[in-house]
Amino acid sequence: MQLQCPMPKLDFEVITLGHGSGGLLTNRLLDSGVFEVLKNDILDKRHDGATLNLSGPTAFTTDSFVISPIFFPGGNIGELAVNGTVNDLAMCGALPEYLSLSFILEEGLPVKQFWEVLVGVKVACELAGVQVVTGDTKVVEKGKGDKVFINTTGVGRLHPRAQIDVNRVQPGDQIIVSGQLATHGMAIMSVREGLEFETTIESDSCNLNHAVRALLDAFGPDIHLLRDPTRGGVATVLTEIARDTGLGVNLQQRQLPIDPQVAGACEMLGLDPLYVANEGLFIAVVAAEKADEALAMMREQPYCENAAIIGEVTTDHPRKTVLTSSIGGKRVVNMLTGEQLPRIC
Amino acid sequence: MQLQCPMPKLDFEVITLGHGSGGLLTNRLLDSGVFEVLKNDILDKRHDGATLNLSGPTAFTTDSFVISPIFFPGGNIGELAVNGTVNDLAMCGALPEYLSLSFILEEGLPVKQFWEVLVGVKVACELAGVQVVTGDTKVVEKGKGDKVFINTTGVGRLHPRAQIDVNRVQPGDQIIVSGQLATHGMAIMSVREGLEFETTIESDSCNLNHAVRALLDAFGPDIHLLRDPTRGGVATVLTEIARDTGLGVNLQQRQLPIDPQVAGACEMLGLDPLYVANEGLFIAVVAAEKADEALAMMREQPYCENAAIIGEVTTDHPRKTVLTSSIGGKRVVNMLTGEQLPRIC
Repeated sequence: MQLQCPMPKLDFEVITLGHGSGGLLTNRLLDSGVFEVLKNDILDKRHDGATLNLSGPTAFTTDSFVISPIFFPGGNIGELAVNGTVNDLAMCGALPEYLSLSFILEEGLPVKQFWEVLVGVKVACELAGVQVVTGDTKVVEKGKGDKVFINTTGVGRLHPRAQIDVNRVQPGDQIIVSGQLATHGMAIMSVREGLEFETTIESDSCNLNHAVRALLDAFGPDIHLLRDPTRGGVATVLTEIARDTGLGVNLQQRQLPIDPQVAGACEMLGLDPLYVANEGLFIAVVAAEKADEALAMMREQPYCENAAIIGEVTTDHPRKTVLTSSIGGKRVVNMLTGEQLPRIC
Repeated sequence: MQLQCPMPKLDFEVITLGHGSGGLLTNRLLDSGVFEVLKNDILDKRHDGATLNLSGPTAFTTDSFVISPIFFPGGNIGELAVNGTVNDLAMCGALPEYLSLSFILEEGLPVKQFWEVLVGVKVACELAGVQVVTGDTKVVEKGKGDKVFINTTGVGRLHPRAQIDVNRVQPGDQIIVSGQLATHGMAIMSVREGLEFETTIESDSCNLNHAVRALLDAFGPDIHLLRDPTRGGVATVLTEIARDTGLGVNLQQRQLPIDPQVAGACEMLGLDPLYVANEGLFIAVVAAEKADEALAMMREQPYCENAAIIGEVTTDHPRKTVLTSSIGGKRVVNMLTGEQLPRIC
C-alpha cells in the first residue's frame, strides 16, 4: 500500500520552532517535498486559501487527530486523518472531494517521521480519490505537544440520491454494520500494552466512501442514516440514534461480527467490544424491505466483506438500546461513560 | 466587546480525558453550553458534518492556532482563531460564511477558561458575520498539549468582483497596508517578557472581511492581490510577492505606520517591526491609478483608520524587496529566517 516516495535530502534532521515561523524555514520545509508529494493544480497556487468550484448542497466536516502512537499496525496518523474525514463526509451522504491539512508538530520531531506521515496522507488521498488543497503548519516547543497532531477538514457534494437524516429512521429499519467490530481500538491497545498474539491485530483504518457511494447509487433514499462508530464505539452510536429518534434499538449479540483474536484481546483486557473505537467501519440504517439486498451488495464492496445485520429499530422501548445476549438474556446498552482508550484517533 | 454569556453550572471544574471520549462526558460538555453558545440551524442538526448550500467559486482555508498565552491583551485564542480564518478567506477575495471549529484540549484545563475561549469564538463570529457549523473536541494527557489548540477551517463564496491573483500584480501597483505594524506580536511579547508601558499594548486581532468587502465592492478587479502579514510579518509577505511575481518591491520606511509605543517596544527588544507578526492587518496591491482613492476609502473602514501606501511594485530589481530607510539608505529585505516569536498565533 505504501507509495514509493523517497525522502528528499535535507539540511535538517528534526523539526524546529523555525519551521513553524511562516518565514524561510517554513518555506524550506514545504518546498523540500510537501508540495511535491501532495501536488495538484489547486494546491500549486500556494495562496492562503484554495478556490473550489462547488455547487449545490455540500457537506463540511472537521476532525483533529491526536492518536498515540502515531505509527501503529495497519497505518499511521496521516493516513488516519485522511480516512477519518473522508468517512465523516461519506456518513453525510456526500462524495468527498477536497481536504485541508493542518499540522501541529512538536519541536524535535525527526523529519523522517514527518515524511512518513505525509506519505500516509498521500496514499490515503489517492485511495479515497480526494485532494489536499490547502494547509497549515505550526510547531510548538518540546513538551507542549506530542509529536504530530493533524486536523483535516473536508468538503464534498451530497450524493444526488442521498437523504440521510436521523428523522427518516423508522420502526422496522434494519441496522447493518459494514465489518468487524473493535479492530482499530484493539490494534492500538495491543501496541500500548505490549500484547502479543499469533498474528498482529491491524487497524481497520480505511476509506468508506466508495462503499457508501455504491450503496447510495443503488438504494438512494432507502438508506435512512449512516454513522461511523469511532470514539465511543458501536454502543455510543446506537444510543445516540435511540436518543435522537425517540425510538428503540434492538441489538443481537450473536450477530455482531468480530475477529476471534480481537474478541480474545478484549476479553483479556476486560473491554466490551461494543465500546471500542473503530475506524474503517460504518453503520447503515436501512429500510426493512431493502435490507437483505443492501447487505448482499455491501459484502461485495471494499473493506465490507464481513458486513452483517446486527439489529433493528423498534417502538418497544423508546430511547433505549437493548442487547439480546448470545444466551438470550437482555440488557440495556448505555453510552460510553468515562474514557476507555484515550487518544485512539 | 464581551457578550454576556454566564457560564452554566457544571458538575466538573476541569477538562478530563473523558471529555474527549466521544461518549457521555463529551456529550455532557457539549450540552453544558457549547451548542447553546454557538447555536444556529445547521449546527443544531448535530450530525458528523454540516450540509451547506454553496454555489460557484468558493474559497476554502485552514489554520491551527497554538498561541501562548491563550489570554492576552486585546483578545484570546478563541477570538483569534475565528478572525484568523475569516481574514484568510477575505484575502482570497471571499465573503466568509461558515467555519468548522476543532479543539485539542489539555487534560486539567479549567472549564472556566474553556468557557471564556468559547465566548471569544462567539463574539468574533458575530462581529464577522460567520457561523460555526461543525466541530470536534479532543483531549490529550497533561503535558502532551498546552491548554488549548484550535483549528478553524472556513468556506465562503468569492466576491463576484474579486480577481485576486498574484499573476495580476503589475509594475507600478501601489502597496497599501491597512493599519499599524507589529501590534499583535508586541502585545504578546510584552506579556511574555513582562514589559510595562504607559498603556498596555493590545493585540490588533480583528476581522478584516468587512473592510475587504467594501474595497472589492468599490474597486473590484483593480485590487490585484490581498495578503495578511501574520507570521513572518510584512517583510515575509512582500518577499513572497517579489518571488512569486518575478517583480521587485520598493518599500518606504518613513511611510510605515507604527504606534510609537510599539516601535519603542521593538527597539527595546531588538526586533524589526517588519518581521513581527500582525493579526488585524492586510496588504492590498492596487492598480496605480486607483490607489489614492482606495486608500481614502480604506481609512473609513473599521480597523483601517491608519491605512497607508508603503511602497510600490517595480521592474527595477526583479525578485527583490528593497527598503529605503528614513534617512535615504537602501537595503534588501529578506524573508524571516529563524523564528522571531514562536507561537504568536
